[in-house]
Amino acid sequence: MKNNKGILVVVSGFSGAGKGTVMKQLLQTYDNYALSISMATREPRPGEVDGRDYFFVTRERFEEQIKEGGLIEYAKYCNNYYGTPKAYVEQQLDAGKDVILEIEIQGALKIKEKFKTALLVYVMPPSVAELEKRLVGRGTETAEVIHQRLARADEEAEGIENYDYIVINDDLKECVKELHTIIRTAHNAPLRNKDFIQTIRKDLKHLSKGE
Amino acid sequence: MKNNKGILVVVSGFSGAGKGTVMKQLLQTYDNYALSISMATREPRPGEVDGRDYFFVTRERFEEQIKEGGLIEYAKYCNNYYGTPKAYVEQQLDAGKDVILEIEIQGALKIKEKFKTALLVYVMPPSVAELEKRLVGRGTETAEVIHQRLARADEEAEGIENYDYIVINDDLKECVKELHTIIRTAHNAPLRNKDFIQTIRKDLKHLSKGE
Repeated sequence: MKNNKGILVVVSGFSGAGKGTVMKQLLQTYDNYALSISMATREPRPGEVDGRDYFFVTRERFEEQIKEGGLIEYAKYCNNYYGTPKAYVEQQLDAGKDVILEIEIQGALKIKEKFKTALLVYVMPPSVAELEKRLVGRGTETAEVIHQRLARADEEAEGIENYDYIVINDDLKECVKELHTIIRTAHNAPLRNKDFIQTIRKDLKHLSKGE
Repeated sequence: MKNNKGILVVVSGFSGAGKGTVMKQLLQTYDNYALSISMATREPRPGEVDGRDYFFVTRERFEEQIKEGGLIEYAKYCNNYYGTPKAYVEQQLDAGKDVILEIEIQGALKIKEKFKTALLVYVMPPSVAELEKRLVGRGTETAEVIHQRLARADEEAEGIENYDYIVINDDLKECVKELHTIIRTAHNAPLRNKDFIQTIRKDLKHLSKGE
């Protein structure tokens, strides 16, 4: 029997690649996913809900979590902590859910070091021209911010080879289907089926020795 | 644009796992595959057709091919050569076909060393009890031969972790579909999309520098 444990799926992508929409659609379309919710020490922004957008906690509580090993990974930006609580992720994985974690490239690589079985997927735009069009099209960002995002994308692009798969978000529906297929398929990797392979080996040894 | 080049797919599996049937069904069901045909120096057996089962050649011709670098890999068993002609494989890959190559574990690992983009898939039985049942059920093998095959399977099982994926041949139709999905999905790995990633990087650099 194949392993029924869930996979930790780390999704990254340039700002403007449409990662957020892809993941929202993925979770709405298929029922075998759970979304990991980050813990943060910054103030909630208007409209953000505790336990949906983030778990908002105090700095003291966050530092306790670090000490207790309660976080899969964490980082500090602009004097605030952000991290991934371990308990929820492990509970969902044990229940057979594939847990989706949206995180930037540095965090993704940290996770891959700790969790060899994590699957890293990078959402890409079909082209840079399209990426720029989407960022400009939002109409909410200044030219300066757009420029910063492109410069950031340029940095992040250096690490794409460390991901297991890329998906190109050209057609949203296609992209979601592709991402789902990639995750389902990942369940067939040997490193995610160690118990099954071990059982086959043990039984073969017995049988070939005539035991 | 994603890479349209084909993938070299190396399929291995225990004798009795049903690998041959799975591959025959895969090639009949989908039209994006080409089967690699091995070159051999042994005599054709009754019913075997040159150019379908093997390319049957003389020892001299085979050794010429080795010298000229015309083989992706080769091995010698029972004083006969067996190998994979390179020209046909490359021509099919360039035409966008995924080329299926059935080969045992040692050959598979040699290929992975040379072709980093090759995809290695291992076909497994659902259990060792089922494997034994199938081998016995054929009714064509003596107990001694069956024992040898199980001992051989035991050896081969040591190398399964080197494969990219396993597929379990429980239900034939499901297994073929799964194998097809694995191969389609493999086209999304970063190492098979180097040109696309390079283009995105180059364009991002230009844009973020305001060129």
